[in-house]
Amino acid sequence: MTNITRPTLVIDKEICLRNIERMAQKASDNNLHFRPHFKTHQSVVVGEWFRNFGVSAITVSSVQMAEYFAADEWDDITIAFPLNVLEMNNINRLAANINLNLTLENKETAEILAKHISAPAGVYIKVDTGYNRTGIITSKTSKLDAILEVIATNKKLNFKGFLTHNGLTYSALSTNEIFSRHFDALLKLKSLKQRYASDFPNVEISIGDTPSCSICNNFSEVDEIRPGNFVFYDLMQQSLGVCTFDDIAVRMVCPIVAKHPSRNEVVIYGGAIHLSKDSMQNTDGKEFYGRIAINKKGEKKILNERNYVARLSQEHGIIKVSQKNFDFFKIGELVEIIPIHSCLTANLARRYLTTQGEEIKMINS
Amino acid sequence: MTNITRPTLVIDKEICLRNIERMAQKASDNNLHFRPHFKTHQSVVVGEWFRNFGVSAITVSSVQMAEYFAADEWDDITIAFPLNVLEMNNINRLAANINLNLTLENKETAEILAKHISAPAGVYIKVDTGYNRTGIITSKTSKLDAILEVIATNKKLNFKGFLTHNGLTYSALSTNEIFSRHFDALLKLKSLKQRYASDFPNVEISIGDTPSCSICNNFSEVDEIRPGNFVFYDLMQQSLGVCTFDDIAVRMVCPIVAKHPSRNEVVIYGGAIHLSKDSMQNTDGKEFYGRIAINKKGEKKILNERNYVARLSQEHGIIKVSQKNFDFFKIGELVEIIPIHSCLTANLARRYLTTQGEEIKMINS
Repeated sequence: MTNITRPTLVIDKEICLRNIERMAQKASDNNLHFRPHFKTHQSVVVGEWFRNFGVSAITVSSVQMAEYFAADEWDDITIAFPLNVLEMNNINRLAANINLNLTLENKETAEILAKHISAPAGVYIKVDTGYNRTGIITSKTSKLDAILEVIATNKKLNFKGFLTHNGLTYSALSTNEIFSRHFDALLKLKSLKQRYASDFPNVEISIGDTPSCSICNNFSEVDEIRPGNFVFYDLMQQSLGVCTFDDIAVRMVCPIVAKHPSRNEVVIYGGAIHLSKDSMQNTDGKEFYGRIAINKKGEKKILNERNYVARLSQEHGIIKVSQKNFDFFKIGELVEIIPIHSCLTANLARRYLTTQGEEIKMINS
Repeated sequence: MTNITRPTLVIDKEICLRNIERMAQKASDNNLHFRPHFKTHQSVVVGEWFRNFGVSAITVSSVQMAEYFAADEWDDITIAFPLNVLEMNNINRLAANINLNLTLENKETAEILAKHISAPAGVYIKVDTGYNRTGIITSKTSKLDAILEVIATNKKLNFKGFLTHNGLTYSALSTNEIFSRHFDALLKLKSLKQRYASDFPNVEISIGDTPSCSICNNFSEVDEIRPGNFVFYDLMQQSLGVCTFDDIAVRMVCPIVAKHPSRNEVVIYGGAIHLSKDSMQNTDGKEFYGRIAINKKGEKKILNERNYVARLSQEHGIIKVSQKNFDFFKIGELVEIIPIHSCLTANLARRYLTTQGEEIKMINS
């Protein structure tokens, strides 16, 4: 850490391993296939850490990411994003080389896929349990049937089941609300499974949100979980009650470049192109972009909510700190920011440094 | 454009050239040194376009960017960011090779610089005319004097003048407010110049915000302008009244992957890692992340404010469109999104495609 001179995303490998082990154990305890989402870390090095916990199948959110991990000998990949028909050539190359699963949610795309697929591929149908981002509402079975009919026209396509992302759990106001939103999704998925079980005895249900995979214990009818964020966690998950501060494995470490005593503000080299503009609402109602961790007398400490990243421009970050802490921050030293949303921060970082000093590359390093 | 299969930032070179020419002309008409900020485009190829308009001196916002452009024979660079003393080694290497200007705003940093600088460098003092991001409030002359005293202790350091960024113009509610905020800054800078003119007859005033550089016509006492965003402009500038839609040179072109007629929503491959989470408030009070440009019957058209990017997750974008336009969007086709903040979108894109089909690399391509 002492060699850091520019904003650097530092990850604690021990915490990552613990997070992976806990989720792998949970999957195993609940008889769930564990297919972690690699969109959060986007790194073949971090990917290796998962293999040690028996992970051999993964999820990604783009064809590009599938290509990146396939090149590192991951040969069982689900692209959990609505099929982009403009990438059929790349998809066919992937399907020829690995066990590739695709995601469909409309008949038009299914028809193009059935016409152009040139190697065997698994197919999940994306369903919507109420989040309303995308996917077919679970009760609209005629739409599901229409896609299934198209899939059946091409022997290369193997229908595997229904995939969903219950994004509603990210906006829950309490852990109880996460439980109830998860349970509501389970009920919908259960009817779905019952309806299709006779025609497709192996039909799978795959779910993906980190909040419910982290804290819920009822996964009836679920066959597979695809959480991603849990490997790092972040402030958003901590504030939901899904993880503790001790589970957050990432910090953006930034140089301090200026101080403004009249307004208790500290200026860091670390802005929107390092942390991302994802924000949360602080206790005082104001948007903020990260919290602050310090080492005080050899002890790690997270400063309370009166100390936070208040504003971001391209490379500047403005930290608001309480009067009591102001003198602790010194120009030319480093400060650790806990990011709001680790997926976006990691994507901007393009590389990691571990707390042990190892440099780790990512997809676009 | 027909070969695009993934989210791609397309730039219109003709519009960029027009934007550069207009700003270069304005600088010349007002007897201002034109030192454009290259943090927006971050590309040596786009940098070349500036040379044709007589630009030989540039601004950047990090040592890393200075290194990138210095490697492309830019030999007069101002780093308009508070000096990060942790990068002294890199700064010394740069100063040995090019005309480098640094930015100071506190005595601690000045002392470290004076102690460690090993080659001649220009120094600007960053002043704050009311934006309160960073810099010394213009009336705090004792703080300015303290820095000047330190600079004077090392002959390698050459005090050049005062540099400011009047970020207040970006939150103006009308062009009149931009004029008045600019004028307010000019008054403060004028007193500053008067106070220091006898001791430093060549003291310069350097300002940087795109809004006032674009639309104001009074630059009394200003010696240099450093706008950056104007090369591309964006929705934020258009909504401020600083540019027209026709001046915006960038579009994020994204594949359409799904449609939801029941809520008039179109799902694109294009999310927070492509557009950034920078948002604006729509006429209905809701946050949004971009507007939509279409080609209808051979004519370019920007859809009205009832059509917009409503939500973003990592790779998904959800576009809300009016009923009337819904059928225009077809799965498997492309849609053009006008970004809210082109600097952040360009930084995420990592490369450009011109409307003529030329691929353009950036700093981290």
